[in-house]
Amino acid sequence: MIVDQIVKPDFEALESALSESQGLDKVLVVFATCSVEWRGNRNGSIGTGQRIILCKPDGAISVHRPNWARAIARQGVNSTLELYPLETGFLLYASKSKGKHTIHIHLQEVPLVVVYSATDKAEPEHRETEEEMHAFIQSNPETLEDGLRILHHEHPIDVGTIDFVGADRSGNRVIIEVKTQYAKLSHVDQLQRYVKHYNRTDNASVRGLLVAPEFGEKTKRELRESGLEKCRLNEFQHQDLGPNQSSFERWQ
Amino acid sequence: MIVDQIVKPDFEALESALSESQGLDKVLVVFATCSVEWRGNRNGSIGTGQRIILCKPDGAISVHRPNWARAIARQGVNSTLELYPLETGFLLYASKSKGKHTIHIHLQEVPLVVVYSATDKAEPEHRETEEEMHAFIQSNPETLEDGLRILHHEHPIDVGTIDFVGADRSGNRVIIEVKTQYAKLSHVDQLQRYVKHYNRTDNASVRGLLVAPEFGEKTKRELRESGLEKCRLNEFQHQDLGPNQSSFERWQ
Repeated sequence: MIVDQIVKPDFEALESALSESQGLDKVLVVFATCSVEWRGNRNGSIGTGQRIILCKPDGAISVHRPNWARAIARQGVNSTLELYPLETGFLLYASKSKGKHTIHIHLQEVPLVVVYSATDKAEPEHRETEEEMHAFIQSNPETLEDGLRILHHEHPIDVGTIDFVGADRSGNRVIIEVKTQYAKLSHVDQLQRYVKHYNRTDNASVRGLLVAPEFGEKTKRELRESGLEKCRLNEFQHQDLGPNQSSFERWQ
Repeated sequence: MIVDQIVKPDFEALESALSESQGLDKVLVVFATCSVEWRGNRNGSIGTGQRIILCKPDGAISVHRPNWARAIARQGVNSTLELYPLETGFLLYASKSKGKHTIHIHLQEVPLVVVYSATDKAEPEHRETEEEMHAFIQSNPETLEDGLRILHHEHPIDVGTIDFVGADRSGNRVIIEVKTQYAKLSHVDQLQRYVKHYNRTDNASVRGLLVAPEFGEKTKRELRESGLEKCRLNEFQHQDLGPNQSSFERWQ
């Protein structure tokens, strides 16, 4: 891991750092006063301010303000990054998908560029709460309703994949959609679509059940009006995790 | 704009840089070999790799790998950032919403920390393509259908806001939902919800029309089966924008 620092780079220094970083394992971190304009899925611009620009070797670029976690402008891998001289500074230009996505960054002052030779071969492990909820429901269907049995998990139909197909005590089919977040109107829509398209192989009637940790008033009303049901499953609220409660055992 | 560089900080140096940055206009950019674990809306972890961590004065934190534009872990403003000593390095711990959202970062090697005194008072201007599409439809409703008139723009009803309510040549009401992206099944659901809940003040019948640049086969079929209609409006594909085609006039 090598960290090179270029203080107040001129055009040549910044240009060569940028072109050398592309394709190699070098990230360019540009500390700059700049204005930015972006076009593509979102269009917008922002005037002059002090920001941090990450230029990654795979062509990804993101512009960070000194506040908020999210980048103000961001473009994915395989962007082309180029530098042009301007009368007052430099233009850092990122272009992707034949110019459909572009970011123009007017670099007015660049006190520091850090060239970071970094490699990261680790694979992230996503342990979504959704998976945990699914495993719980699979093992404990009676938590949703007495006598409920699970027939299929992640059952594909033509208009999506049903989380669970169950059978209730009276032999009705139950289409179950599971949400880890506050239930929204769009979740009701989705459940309704599944119920509508579910192909009954027998004469059993079909119920729709939305499972979520919380339901708002509008969602409850929409469920009632659509003849659908709800089940509040709040076991999966996240618990308080202190600094010593990481699952990385080796940490302490 | 002041950029301070701390090469290979020890615990005290990193701890005081972190605590001094919070609340002041200082961003901490930490270059580190680290492993990370995150909990909250998403749960996951990643083993050891070389990464860049942005700690912002408003409490926002994001961990960036040397590839992809998106952060691997991110937490919003008002997080509490703390540093703890470990046998092998430091634990950078971010906690938000009473521990519901946490990030544990095991810093194993920290070759450089940059303390960036940055201010950014600029307000971003979002010129969403959606706004442009709305303005276009408002001015040119006949592009969607001969004789169509717009009655309301952004018409609130109980279950959302209808983009446009129009009247067709035969006096029917037309509920119009506008999408800037490829039309999806969930957009059909949304339109169907609006049509269902739209309160007719007269005896006119109600049609539903989904407007988007592209439609897939499943979406088309679902629209047909739901008795809804579609209109392809591809004028709003993004044009090719070169480095000299920014709208910042002062740039060249």
